[in-house]
Amino acid sequence: MYRTHTCGELNISKVGEQVTLSGWVQKTRALGGMTFVDLRDRYGITQLVFNNDTDVALCDRANKLGREFVIQIKGKVIERTSKNLNIPTGEIEIDVKELNIISESETPPFLIENATDGSEELRLKYRYLDIRRPELKDRLIMRAKFNAAVREYLDARDFLEIETPNLIKSTPEGARDFLVPSRLMHGSFYALPQSPQILKQLLMVAGMDRYYQIVRCFRDEDFRGDRQPEFTQVDCEMSFMHQEDIFEVFGGMMQHVFKKIKNYDLPELPRIKYDDAIKYYGSDKPDLRFDCKIVDLNTVLPKSEFGVFNNAIESGGLVAGINATGCAAYSRKQFDELVEFVKASHRGLSGLVNIRFNEDGTVKSSVDKFFNEEQLREIGKAFNAQKGDLLLIAADKTSKVRKSLGDLRLELGKKNNWMDPNAWSVIWVVDFPLFEKDEESGEITFAHHPFCSPHPDDMQYFDTDPTRVRAQTYDMVMNGNEILSGSVRIHQRDIQEKVFNNLGLTPEDREKKFGFMLNAFRFGAPPHGGCAFGVDRVIMLLSGGETIRDVIAFPKTAGGRDLMMDAPTIVDKKQLDELGIAVKGGL
Amino acid sequence: MYRTHTCGELNISKVGEQVTLSGWVQKTRALGGMTFVDLRDRYGITQLVFNNDTDVALCDRANKLGREFVIQIKGKVIERTSKNLNIPTGEIEIDVKELNIISESETPPFLIENATDGSEELRLKYRYLDIRRPELKDRLIMRAKFNAAVREYLDARDFLEIETPNLIKSTPEGARDFLVPSRLMHGSFYALPQSPQILKQLLMVAGMDRYYQIVRCFRDEDFRGDRQPEFTQVDCEMSFMHQEDIFEVFGGMMQHVFKKIKNYDLPELPRIKYDDAIKYYGSDKPDLRFDCKIVDLNTVLPKSEFGVFNNAIESGGLVAGINATGCAAYSRKQFDELVEFVKASHRGLSGLVNIRFNEDGTVKSSVDKFFNEEQLREIGKAFNAQKGDLLLIAADKTSKVRKSLGDLRLELGKKNNWMDPNAWSVIWVVDFPLFEKDEESGEITFAHHPFCSPHPDDMQYFDTDPTRVRAQTYDMVMNGNEILSGSVRIHQRDIQEKVFNNLGLTPEDREKKFGFMLNAFRFGAPPHGGCAFGVDRVIMLLSGGETIRDVIAFPKTAGGRDLMMDAPTIVDKKQLDELGIAVKGGL
Repeated sequence: MYRTHTCGELNISKVGEQVTLSGWVQKTRALGGMTFVDLRDRYGITQLVFNNDTDVALCDRANKLGREFVIQIKGKVIERTSKNLNIPTGEIEIDVKELNIISESETPPFLIENATDGSEELRLKYRYLDIRRPELKDRLIMRAKFNAAVREYLDARDFLEIETPNLIKSTPEGARDFLVPSRLMHGSFYALPQSPQILKQLLMVAGMDRYYQIVRCFRDEDFRGDRQPEFTQVDCEMSFMHQEDIFEVFGGMMQHVFKKIKNYDLPELPRIKYDDAIKYYGSDKPDLRFDCKIVDLNTVLPKSEFGVFNNAIESGGLVAGINATGCAAYSRKQFDELVEFVKASHRGLSGLVNIRFNEDGTVKSSVDKFFNEEQLREIGKAFNAQKGDLLLIAADKTSKVRKSLGDLRLELGKKNNWMDPNAWSVIWVVDFPLFEKDEESGEITFAHHPFCSPHPDDMQYFDTDPTRVRAQTYDMVMNGNEILSGSVRIHQRDIQEKVFNNLGLTPEDREKKFGFMLNAFRFGAPPHGGCAFGVDRVIMLLSGGETIRDVIAFPKTAGGRDLMMDAPTIVDKKQLDELGIAVKGGL
Repeated sequence: MYRTHTCGELNISKVGEQVTLSGWVQKTRALGGMTFVDLRDRYGITQLVFNNDTDVALCDRANKLGREFVIQIKGKVIERTSKNLNIPTGEIEIDVKELNIISESETPPFLIENATDGSEELRLKYRYLDIRRPELKDRLIMRAKFNAAVREYLDARDFLEIETPNLIKSTPEGARDFLVPSRLMHGSFYALPQSPQILKQLLMVAGMDRYYQIVRCFRDEDFRGDRQPEFTQVDCEMSFMHQEDIFEVFGGMMQHVFKKIKNYDLPELPRIKYDDAIKYYGSDKPDLRFDCKIVDLNTVLPKSEFGVFNNAIESGGLVAGINATGCAAYSRKQFDELVEFVKASHRGLSGLVNIRFNEDGTVKSSVDKFFNEEQLREIGKAFNAQKGDLLLIAADKTSKVRKSLGDLRLELGKKNNWMDPNAWSVIWVVDFPLFEKDEESGEITFAHHPFCSPHPDDMQYFDTDPTRVRAQTYDMVMNGNEILSGSVRIHQRDIQEKVFNNLGLTPEDREKKFGFMLNAFRFGAPPHGGCAFGVDRVIMLLSGGETIRDVIAFPKTAGGRDLMMDAPTIVDKKQLDELGIAVKGGL
């Protein structure tokens, strides 16, 4: 037997026991005739002691152990004289009588500790060593616990785990597919699924009633930001449901998950309408760990000669601002940084007006020429401005103002630590629009996907004012990140027709793009809807990771490479010949 | 709300309650002023009654319901006069007061009942209708329960579910890879994993200690027999283990699974050595639901002039037979069928000798010319032959005799119903050879894979008699089907070297084929080993399916096609251009 206990389980109650442990040498240190070795495994660290007085040869061997050697020891559990109460094994150590080296190790290319000296590239190449670092190991453990908690919850509610295929049909809709050439049908290709969306809807048509799967999905997108070519979803669908059922089941699931893996009592998830999220937070994924709402000023502003405000209002735009509480004393430089922030090309404001409610009771602004102190105080009331507050006001096209102030709000939140690091904001965003109008072409496109059910109260606007039609679509947002998205689907053919008509899809388009799904709906489709959770991102947020690479065992780089395996690679010509394909300009 | 109850949960205790149900119309029948409708969902069937006396219009609408319409009804639970005690809802029916058609259905292309009239091809095309058949639905439910039982068991034993990537490096070893062209690196390809073998071993090097995953694997093999291009494994690996730990943990897992999904107390799994399995059952996956061992006769046979026996023995071959108990009265035709069976080209025997222990006490044989009755009785003793028994004896090369008699044993078992349909044979086959000698070239190859640990007692034969070296490799066999395979891996570099040497691998080969894995082992590899279960086959056996297609929601045909989605398909030239590949001779 390699071990009687793991390196994480021995404590003061075991003093006197003879034990056998196996693990990795974290570090060794010789100290006044004794040699101490920290022995590590997945479960923890146990201190070993070798005594030079009782066994010189054994102690010599211990002194020669290198970092990351795999060893097995036998010895007796004894109480430590100098205890470490920060770790569960910190009150004991093992008086070693027998040492067996199982595997030696070369010097690892970086420090195997949370504070490591390895670059991310080096650590990705030696991922099997990086995973030995407690930080990464603990994230993978949390991930396993998350999956278990999700399954426990859904299994108990009659959701069935049903596996859907990974070699499916390529659809030109949406993001780019990864393709897989078929050897048996040269010239034909499978696609890897971007999500099991259509398949899960077919499982509802098949009468499976409640489905889930923790499933790998694939998107051949450019790797902007924190993306991976393969990612994991908790994918769910249910029949004979209304939107309220989703809120109950999956809000409850999040509460269950928080309790299980953070021992945190997440309150019932508040809901915010899409329109309100945009209006008050300039984002459809607001971070509500702090307030700082956007305040609309169009109807509040005193009459003035200030052209920037007047022009914005007259051209149908918006004047609005936020209250940077406690920031009245910002320096010129600090304020200029905020102006540059909103002037960045993807935000595109031309500037910010500031109104400072100074601690000495005075009120000053960058528009003192146009507004007197009384008028400024009047504006301040709309923000409930107090001594020490700084109001930041923008005027432009409505969407630009909201987006910029929403971003500014977050930027100020970060700068001023307005987000309590122990707080969680997990909310539902609801009542998304069904259609979007392309700002350039004016064309109507779907906001989510073409099977989202319209809100029953809004059918009246279908022909006259389609962008006013709300969808039965919902997102779950955690600390400002979208972690779930879903909708009630259309199961009625007449409504599906209406949607297709609004999207300008010809019967040929419909058949080509969605044929086999629409076909299925001819045989008795139940009302159904569902959602998908982004597992990687949820675990990243829950575990304090900085990128989703931090919560994936073997992730790829931003360029889609696996540095450990060295994939993708050139393959034998024979393999390509068998598939009936050739690499252009080579091989 | 679409329903207050499912169609499977109402019973006599609910009589008098007002309920709302939703589901599919299984069938309707008008009978003496009443119309009965069977309403079906995943959970069961509930009978609805419409009374012509109380509501003619409603009854008329019920009469017009077609098969597979989705409806919602409201009504009162009443006790049936004519009860069906075979189903949980059989004592009640619903006196319907309100009927709402949710979705109509065209006439389905085949009967949605266990005894369907649809061909498999048609049913694969309309898989979403096929899944409505109780048989298939119940198999998918069993599959979900299996996965849940496996996870419950492994989670409780500190196994961590860790996801491994699906876009990995292509290795020319083993079966053919499915390839995925890289868009960002033209000319390079990912491969879909045939199994996470190397990755799970690296997780052990990474210190994760105990890993599992219910994982999709891919093999681009020709679709002989019952194969799918994608299939599911319960994939496991553990560190600091011996072979006994595997038997304990995964034998126990099977017992747990049987209890959970069949409520069957599977006894501790017996073990049989590979050599014995071959010797007694002519197979490394013996079906032990019945006995009928192969009996070796080389040392038992009385001296005779029978050349077939003598030649076999003199040329180092084997004479052996089986006792077809109770088959002495087989007709000439029946016996000839058995002879043809063993003469089939993949078995290749030239014939069978028979000895018949007739009910009248006489003993006759097809070799009466060479053996007298006393000698035949002497041979019979080796089989413990009784009145009514038929001995079937073959003589040829040893491997051919064993294989053919093993097959014959199974054939007789099927013909004579020797397998108790309620019995389960779940066993370990152990002590496989580490190496195999190619019969043609005489070259030594690995029997399983090159990382299997040799048996420590057999290291002495490494240089002198390598095929005598046993591996720490094990299979689990259920009713004659291999359902699990695994091994203790090599973690010692010197032993790995020895194995590579025996396989004739040059240092270049080793680096090219296994480089990044061998690299990892330089940094402290723990002793480890594991196994993989074939989920599809296990569920097929447990659920009485005939092919693994019967237990997969959306399977592919033997030709690798998905008939429902129509995959694989030709894709847009633009997609191929983006990937930098071209289809040879086209597109």
